[in-house]
Amino acid sequence: MRFDMSTDGLLAQRMARLKSSAIRELLKHSKMDGVISLAGGIPSDALFDFQGLNEATQLAITEQPKSAFQYGLTEGSPLLRERIAELCALRGVHTQAQDIVVTAGSQQALDLVMRATTNPQDIFVVERPTYLAALQTLELAEAQVMSVSSDENGMVVDELAALLETTRIKGVYLVPNFGNPSGVTLSDARRRQLVALAARHDFLIVEDDPYGELRFTEERHATLYQLAKEAGHADRVVYTSSFSKILAPGLRLGWAILPDWLLHKVAIIKQAADLHASSLSQTIVEYYLGTGRLPAQIDKIRQAYRQKGELLSELMASELGDVLSFNQPKGGMFLWARFRQPFDTTAWLQKTLAQGVVFVPGEFFFADNPDQSTLRLSFATATEEQMHEAVARLRRAL
Amino acid sequence: MRFDMSTDGLLAQRMARLKSSAIRELLKHSKMDGVISLAGGIPSDALFDFQGLNEATQLAITEQPKSAFQYGLTEGSPLLRERIAELCALRGVHTQAQDIVVTAGSQQALDLVMRATTNPQDIFVVERPTYLAALQTLELAEAQVMSVSSDENGMVVDELAALLETTRIKGVYLVPNFGNPSGVTLSDARRRQLVALAARHDFLIVEDDPYGELRFTEERHATLYQLAKEAGHADRVVYTSSFSKILAPGLRLGWAILPDWLLHKVAIIKQAADLHASSLSQTIVEYYLGTGRLPAQIDKIRQAYRQKGELLSELMASELGDVLSFNQPKGGMFLWARFRQPFDTTAWLQKTLAQGVVFVPGEFFFADNPDQSTLRLSFATATEEQMHEAVARLRRAL
Repeated sequence: MRFDMSTDGLLAQRMARLKSSAIRELLKHSKMDGVISLAGGIPSDALFDFQGLNEATQLAITEQPKSAFQYGLTEGSPLLRERIAELCALRGVHTQAQDIVVTAGSQQALDLVMRATTNPQDIFVVERPTYLAALQTLELAEAQVMSVSSDENGMVVDELAALLETTRIKGVYLVPNFGNPSGVTLSDARRRQLVALAARHDFLIVEDDPYGELRFTEERHATLYQLAKEAGHADRVVYTSSFSKILAPGLRLGWAILPDWLLHKVAIIKQAADLHASSLSQTIVEYYLGTGRLPAQIDKIRQAYRQKGELLSELMASELGDVLSFNQPKGGMFLWARFRQPFDTTAWLQKTLAQGVVFVPGEFFFADNPDQSTLRLSFATATEEQMHEAVARLRRAL
Repeated sequence: MRFDMSTDGLLAQRMARLKSSAIRELLKHSKMDGVISLAGGIPSDALFDFQGLNEATQLAITEQPKSAFQYGLTEGSPLLRERIAELCALRGVHTQAQDIVVTAGSQQALDLVMRATTNPQDIFVVERPTYLAALQTLELAEAQVMSVSSDENGMVVDELAALLETTRIKGVYLVPNFGNPSGVTLSDARRRQLVALAARHDFLIVEDDPYGELRFTEERHATLYQLAKEAGHADRVVYTSSFSKILAPGLRLGWAILPDWLLHKVAIIKQAADLHASSLSQTIVEYYLGTGRLPAQIDKIRQAYRQKGELLSELMASELGDVLSFNQPKGGMFLWARFRQPFDTTAWLQKTLAQGVVFVPGEFFFADNPDQSTLRLSFATATEEQMHEAVARLRRAL
């Protein structure tokens, strides 16, 4: 066998460095009998709107069977793009259907944008910590990844500003609302500062917003997209989002709002990548959005996750508050914690697994300088009873 | 606007060269009122098994709603991979579920394989003519594309052998059965010769087989995959196929059979590209394959395309046989024709459009040295009446 890592697939070599296979191995444990998983990044299917999905599916396959099962347009169905534009407007993101490309989840939007914009060695800046699978798309694009800190107000934009004094960058990737894994939200002041920097230093902001609707309070922030648009340079922001966390991930549908200079490139690459997103999924979501059920469904998810997030926060504070610090989640699906003393959470995972509970060690979410004393806990899928037990097991594993 | 083609996205620049946007523009014409399209590469939705698809969809959303709407495994659902292995066995392709990755159509399989194997400037060899969207994946992977001729017996493997005397290549991409656009099938002798060359010269064969089941005669050929396996080097062949031409392209489901050294790399890249194929589509196809309806459905498509292919051949021979030559299709969806005298089919397209009929000019299917006197006609979607009229219009446009 002469095909091997040394001669074949530099990209694949870069991927291997990311330890994503380690994560995959880890998550297999979460399926073991009796193990409670706080590791997964998946939404709770106990909350899915099966009735609404069922009705929308019936409509799709009886009213529009040809569109649902035939090839479609690469950019996505015109009606779905209209409906997504309406959905975005409710979020304060004012765009047009023609600026939207429907993708296979926001994951594909990230991969396409990185492929379309990034040449080898171009610098992309991410938060520390950041979304693992975004790092994977950057690695595949052979970007040079740099990182800046985040705190309870999100990315520390002053650090980025300092970096920009000496370094030309291609773009910044961030999750400004209830980030994965950190759970934090970027403050208004930092949003404005970041948008101004993008204009001054000519870089692209990739605003990844899968969790923005899952807020537990009434606190809302303008999107980077909208702020940039109002400042006259919307061409500096790509906004991506997804139906995965608010409706159903198995449909594999997300979208990107793209500036003119980028949309056509992304469409050409998407055509080569998979032609277009599932026509059936698109037709179902067209009907689902047409029923007007989504706002109530989002409310339901928001209430449920808020309760779970509060419970996990209480349990963590009472059981582990002496050894760990964390910010109480204000939205999303994740609680990010940090041991007060130097600690190796990856090593600890073996002990917690022996007790029957798993999480994701924080080091996987760092592009560089991993903080090994951190960990990510998801509160989306465990029941309240499981959460009590899980935290007790974490305590016993200390 | 400082982001532009000169500084941004070398890959996108390469794509632009491929004129895929020209094709996209062209195909828009095929939707115009009164225009008969022989241009599309799409299957006939008049033949779709809507009853079977409807039943399978009902089962998916009532029996397995959680799997259908939740995240799934990157490689694909275990049951679907089993069913695909069974389907492959009926084609004489003997493999195991664990060697299969489910993809978003075979298009994604090609993109993933090129990304996983090909470094910039690696040489990939294709047929002349070849499948346009495969060229796109090779361009995105920054491969250097070389081509060898094809004739009525498919790729001229002797030409490849001569090339290999002086040139080290990474792989060969081909559609050995009823190729798009050429319609030709690789002979048994050339299949064995190609497999032997891959072993001797250490390159990868990407065997793209979306049309193999759509044969109009009883003539069958062993797959390159199976020949290589029997010769003890299956690790030299990737076999890709799709449900798009035999069931429904809107589901966006295909698959790749991958050697061990490549499967894990492909899975890692797929995880970054879109996490996994639509769970809903996968669950529907699991049920559909479980009903046992597929063989009859394939027979139905085969009969219908055979009749249409024969009709188009007769019409072309009688109306245009004096100016064009072509091989009568023995399967698939395409008739590939060539003017007997030097001719520019791209220029001619404007005239045929004025008469109300469109096709795809052949030059788009060449990696290099385009033969401008060629054209591709699809017989999959036009009715018999439309085909009579379309050929009459082509005649009038001369």
